[in-house]
Amino acid sequence: MGTAEVELAEPTMLGWLSDYGLDVEYVRSSGNTLFAKQADGSEKPVLDFAGGYGSVLLGHNNPELVELARELLADGTPIHAQFSRHPYANRLANELNAVLHREFGVSEPYYAVFANSGAEAVEAAVKHAELDRGHRVRAVVEAVGSAVAAARAAVDGGALVDEEAYREFGVASGDFGALADRLVALAGEAASRRPVFLALEGGFHGKLVGSTQLTHNPGYREPFSALARPTRFVALNRPESVREVLEPERVWLREPVVVDGVVRLTDRELPVVTAFLLEPVQGEGGIREVEAEFAKEIGAACEEAGVPVVVDEVQSGMGRCGAFFASSQIGLRGDYYALSKSLGGGIAKAAVMLVRGKHYRGDFELVHSSTFAKDSFSCTVALRALALMEADGGRAYRVAAERGQRLAGVLESIRADHPDLVLEVRGRGLMLGLELRDQSGSANAAVAGQAAAGMLGYAVAGYLLREHAIRLFPTASATSTLRFEPSLHVSDEEIARLENGLRDVMAVLGDPVRGLV
Amino acid sequence: MGTAEVELAEPTMLGWLSDYGLDVEYVRSSGNTLFAKQADGSEKPVLDFAGGYGSVLLGHNNPELVELARELLADGTPIHAQFSRHPYANRLANELNAVLHREFGVSEPYYAVFANSGAEAVEAAVKHAELDRGHRVRAVVEAVGSAVAAARAAVDGGALVDEEAYREFGVASGDFGALADRLVALAGEAASRRPVFLALEGGFHGKLVGSTQLTHNPGYREPFSALARPTRFVALNRPESVREVLEPERVWLREPVVVDGVVRLTDRELPVVTAFLLEPVQGEGGIREVEAEFAKEIGAACEEAGVPVVVDEVQSGMGRCGAFFASSQIGLRGDYYALSKSLGGGIAKAAVMLVRGKHYRGDFELVHSSTFAKDSFSCTVALRALALMEADGGRAYRVAAERGQRLAGVLESIRADHPDLVLEVRGRGLMLGLELRDQSGSANAAVAGQAAAGMLGYAVAGYLLREHAIRLFPTASATSTLRFEPSLHVSDEEIARLENGLRDVMAVLGDPVRGLV
Repeated sequence: MGTAEVELAEPTMLGWLSDYGLDVEYVRSSGNTLFAKQADGSEKPVLDFAGGYGSVLLGHNNPELVELARELLADGTPIHAQFSRHPYANRLANELNAVLHREFGVSEPYYAVFANSGAEAVEAAVKHAELDRGHRVRAVVEAVGSAVAAARAAVDGGALVDEEAYREFGVASGDFGALADRLVALAGEAASRRPVFLALEGGFHGKLVGSTQLTHNPGYREPFSALARPTRFVALNRPESVREVLEPERVWLREPVVVDGVVRLTDRELPVVTAFLLEPVQGEGGIREVEAEFAKEIGAACEEAGVPVVVDEVQSGMGRCGAFFASSQIGLRGDYYALSKSLGGGIAKAAVMLVRGKHYRGDFELVHSSTFAKDSFSCTVALRALALMEADGGRAYRVAAERGQRLAGVLESIRADHPDLVLEVRGRGLMLGLELRDQSGSANAAVAGQAAAGMLGYAVAGYLLREHAIRLFPTASATSTLRFEPSLHVSDEEIARLENGLRDVMAVLGDPVRGLV
Repeated sequence: MGTAEVELAEPTMLGWLSDYGLDVEYVRSSGNTLFAKQADGSEKPVLDFAGGYGSVLLGHNNPELVELARELLADGTPIHAQFSRHPYANRLANELNAVLHREFGVSEPYYAVFANSGAEAVEAAVKHAELDRGHRVRAVVEAVGSAVAAARAAVDGGALVDEEAYREFGVASGDFGALADRLVALAGEAASRRPVFLALEGGFHGKLVGSTQLTHNPGYREPFSALARPTRFVALNRPESVREVLEPERVWLREPVVVDGVVRLTDRELPVVTAFLLEPVQGEGGIREVEAEFAKEIGAACEEAGVPVVVDEVQSGMGRCGAFFASSQIGLRGDYYALSKSLGGGIAKAAVMLVRGKHYRGDFELVHSSTFAKDSFSCTVALRALALMEADGGRAYRVAAERGQRLAGVLESIRADHPDLVLEVRGRGLMLGLELRDQSGSANAAVAGQAAAGMLGYAVAGYLLREHAIRLFPTASATSTLRFEPSLHVSDEEIARLENGLRDVMAVLGDPVRGLV
């Protein structure tokens, strides 16, 4: 040991952060504040609106959660007890069910599968949906086989066969054996069709091998497109787009049915679409809300086609939008939920995937697992984080909504004062975005240059950090949208500081000379 | 809240654990001991040879690591400080490099990308290798284009063209323009070939969408085979199998070269194999060591074909086999390493992927990330875990080797006494396996039934837990192999207790009447 240190942990990123003055070292965090180490060794408090990319709704190092985590460690919590009874995990699953049942007004159980990150939870949902699809495909093929066998018996017993059936497959009239063989063969072939995934334009579902392909941003997706199934993307909030994309993917098999002594052919749908994935409020795509009407169309179209809906609440959920499930606010009930980020209270790496009872396949438990998941530490911290949100009749949700309104009001007032610079303020609760207009034609050459390079959001982030000790970032896939995801504890004074900083940014953007970087 | 609890967290698994008496609740852990809650509320100490599936080499709740973790939390460590300088992560990367350089006798830097689980680290390696392959494919296509352009210029300037070149592509002699167009078109088409992965039979690399397809066990892989690229599997320790599988996958383009005024065609390889993945000691596959000769052939064949080797040390590494990198013991230097499990010291969810400098692509940092990864908590705990292993000139590695020899000696003595029941003892350091012979023809009907169902290993696990308060499990993909992965602190007395338990198991297996379950 003791080698002279060189930059080996993402040096490219560090250089890039350094270009924008974002390469600060944080040494401590608390509430809404991260403390940056200064050259003289002192600490400079930085007001945090990035909020751990949505992970610290309860504040950095929430004292109650820190205390619990310290106790768990002191008490020797059995972190590594794989293949045993995990009551903490089951308790968390039950508590999450209680919240889900309340917010959606349902009573159907949802089963829980644990993971270590949001991306892992999404992938567990995808794997479960595919396992389920496989079971359903086999059942369909078997049903076709049974229908064919029944029709053969009927024909042997003297039933007539609709001539249209022979014509449809170009089989000689009267040769029902050949037609029957053909139907069985076609069902078998169709069963090996590769599955299809649907997701939304602008959607973000993580950066693992599978989840990257479900994420819309081409920069994240295309270099790895050969690794996993491609996704068909549906335009956000364009209800007609749902069926435009879904319908051409649907596949029907033909099977015989005997009615009144005559064998005719009828349709039976083969499930080829594994899942439809969406975030109720898109995070990295620019803080864009799924509208209720659009959600309704997704629900109806997927219900009709037997396609399960995976609701990715990794960023929008856990109370951030004013309810535990942001999807409950738009009446979108999922067949699957992916939860993470603030689920671990900003302390633990916790994630869970919920599967609606009617879809649940117990055999999934025998083929999916993770050494680190379902552990006592993360589950117990998550249980307490959930309890903090649920306390006082869900006061945290009301606070998120109220603080969000206050913050949104400030952002709206900035937009109203600078309609030439700000295109839109979007979002709900403490998941807000402010989209800057395209500044690539700005009279300020530096601003125009950053905008043309797609980096204006990061330049603004660097400026706010340097000049105002405020931390925020643009959304990852829409870098002209600044995101605001502070904790529940964000105060009027802190919002006022942000307003001051943002108004200064507007002044710079509107000034032909002042520099951002 | 306060709903009556039902089983919602993997009830199928719980029922199955219950069948074997494995559904115990652990309430505390320390060193080599997990404490099971008894019906009367008391705690029963259970001697742990499962070792968190390889995660607690330093013991459950290692006191020094627990103390550090508690201090970090009390001090408000900045867990969520994405997009800033992460000195702890860089320090860990540097320390891991120092160990790697020492064990392999090299000085080339390896860059570090962080993750939250072993499977995530494997997928990061796969993604990086694919990004790199994409860059190399484009470079090859460009090189062919340049060679064709140079040849065109040469022909225009009077160079001759080898007639064989026209014949090879069925182009009319003298029409070099047509031949040139053909070569460029073929290169472009070949560039879109889908990538190929190679891995070992018996290998295990995780259970996410991508890593599941790299894992050999058909039960884990086949239900999800439509989700990601299939893998070609190479037979373990059959050196000739490496080229048998690799060579047919290789693809060469043809390009012109001008020598002495004559244009001829020559080969240029197109990289289509993204990576070759292996564990130096297979964990879930039955604790099987990769032999040095086989490793050498993998290294040579991959070097020749330009295929990067991803060494998955998630279970074998971090000192378990008597060196930090088990691959260093067989002279297998990887282009990538995946590390996790004991890296987090049994406390934190830590994982890292290392990329050899010559392959490293800085642009990967801009397209891959994780909210939870590279955090101060897991990196700082991992740094201390590494320091504990490195202390006293790497005493931990010597202890792992010595304790492993002691334990292996006991297992060998059992095998020697029961050659009819025990097929083989395998492994290295504290990663050992004992494979039971097929007992499906046992005179003991209960034993024969469990063996026929492939569940004998779990039945043995249940018996040892119930009768001897010993915790161990079979390997996941080879369930007749019992795995032994205790911590460094395993004592002679604890090994003697295990011996006693295992000898009792042998007595049951050899008895026509006694039951295991």
